[in-house]
Amino acid sequence: MSLRPLILVSNDDGITAPGIRALVEVALEFGDVLVVAPDKPQSAMGHAITINQPIRLVEIHNFDYSLPHDKHSLRTYQCSGTPVDCVKIAIDKLLDRRPDIMLSGINHGSNSSINVIYSGTMSAAVEASIDGMKAVGFSLCDYAWTADFEPAKSVIRAVVTEYLNRELPYGTLLNVNIPKGEVKGLKICRQAMAKWKEDFDRRTDPFGRDYFWMTGQFVNEDHGQDTDEWALSQGYASIVPTQFDLTDHNRMGSLNQWGFERYDKI
Amino acid sequence: MSLRPLILVSNDDGITAPGIRALVEVALEFGDVLVVAPDKPQSAMGHAITINQPIRLVEIHNFDYSLPHDKHSLRTYQCSGTPVDCVKIAIDKLLDRRPDIMLSGINHGSNSSINVIYSGTMSAAVEASIDGMKAVGFSLCDYAWTADFEPAKSVIRAVVTEYLNRELPYGTLLNVNIPKGEVKGLKICRQAMAKWKEDFDRRTDPFGRDYFWMTGQFVNEDHGQDTDEWALSQGYASIVPTQFDLTDHNRMGSLNQWGFERYDKI
Repeated sequence: MSLRPLILVSNDDGITAPGIRALVEVALEFGDVLVVAPDKPQSAMGHAITINQPIRLVEIHNFDYSLPHDKHSLRTYQCSGTPVDCVKIAIDKLLDRRPDIMLSGINHGSNSSINVIYSGTMSAAVEASIDGMKAVGFSLCDYAWTADFEPAKSVIRAVVTEYLNRELPYGTLLNVNIPKGEVKGLKICRQAMAKWKEDFDRRTDPFGRDYFWMTGQFVNEDHGQDTDEWALSQGYASIVPTQFDLTDHNRMGSLNQWGFERYDKI
Repeated sequence: MSLRPLILVSNDDGITAPGIRALVEVALEFGDVLVVAPDKPQSAMGHAITINQPIRLVEIHNFDYSLPHDKHSLRTYQCSGTPVDCVKIAIDKLLDRRPDIMLSGINHGSNSSINVIYSGTMSAAVEASIDGMKAVGFSLCDYAWTADFEPAKSVIRAVVTEYLNRELPYGTLLNVNIPKGEVKGLKICRQAMAKWKEDFDRRTDPFGRDYFWMTGQFVNEDHGQDTDEWALSQGYASIVPTQFDLTDHNRMGSLNQWGFERYDKI
């Protein structure tokens, strides 16, 4: 049995994406790697899971012939489900011990600010964190399939080195976004409070019926200099401590003054 | 132009679910209603959005012939997308003013505790909140299609009455879960820190290949008496103030001590 750290890897761009290839290459420097990734692109799937249809899970041996690929150092599976499904089935069917860390990505495109909530890449990391693993989602702010992931690898090395030697309490994971090109350094940030302004493109099909493509504009009116958007705009990688407890604890006091006790025995 | 409140309604069980029928009936007591709901069940879709295929949006006139159904009091649309898509396309293509409140549900089954993160019903409400609307997700702890929604209606009336007269700051919405049967009252709660333990059911198809059904057991080791799970177990409806800022602000200080400034100019 190997004594090297065990690293679980997934993403949302699918098993064929160059981004996950780059992440696995760095992960192998730290330990043995189990990849369970979607068999097709699953971007923007959020925290979706597959409950109404069966899921396929297939071991593949052609992930990358140039990487060490034996049953100890690197095992790779493709799954027909969502990114969250990939993590769940890895936990139940493939892992015989808890991974030392789970890494998700490298996403082709930003998952900063409100994008974290739509991202399958981040949701895979969140699911690992729910299970109690250390977990990090990595995203490069470049949507191109041919993006240059080399500068991102240094950021990944730094984050994994530090996180493997430290603990965060249950319920916290990391969302790391990396600017395109040269990286000036790493900044601890909060998620910018920005949003997408919807703009559906209406078209007509050959049969005369309307259909729509979702497009949108990213609108950031949060001008704080402690946000991920600000750090990225300055050339820094952003590290946001991220949680999955959605309770707004600060609002519990004011809600208690709404007088809901008047509705007892309704 | 009507001066009644305008209420946007969606869900994740789809436009044909009895739960959304019950919610619309209550909503019509408060104002004019626009329904935009999935044209098929979309449970457990989380915050997924549809970016790789086009979306259909069709007005329907047979939602319920017993309800008032003219262009002012009730308009109903089915959408081929996810619950979040429904809210986004309503904002861009159907609404000519901001709704006074957005209501999602009534979900067939619980969205308490960690279920909030998987729920399409809650994600629709979260999306409305991101856009700046007052928003509430309602769920009945009964998965049956034939569930009795009558006791839930009193809870909805109470929550909508109070919320229409008050404000919550941007970034906060409400997650309301309602126990099956008689409701003792309403409690402000935090989300219980519980999780699902995965248990994939492996089967073999007629061609000799494995496939899996996702199943699981809900495990709650959070025994606090201020949680939604506790309130529901005692016969109370739970109201959790819910946020979509996933930043774990309490961890930013400790992360700043990890020494990432050592990696400047990496």
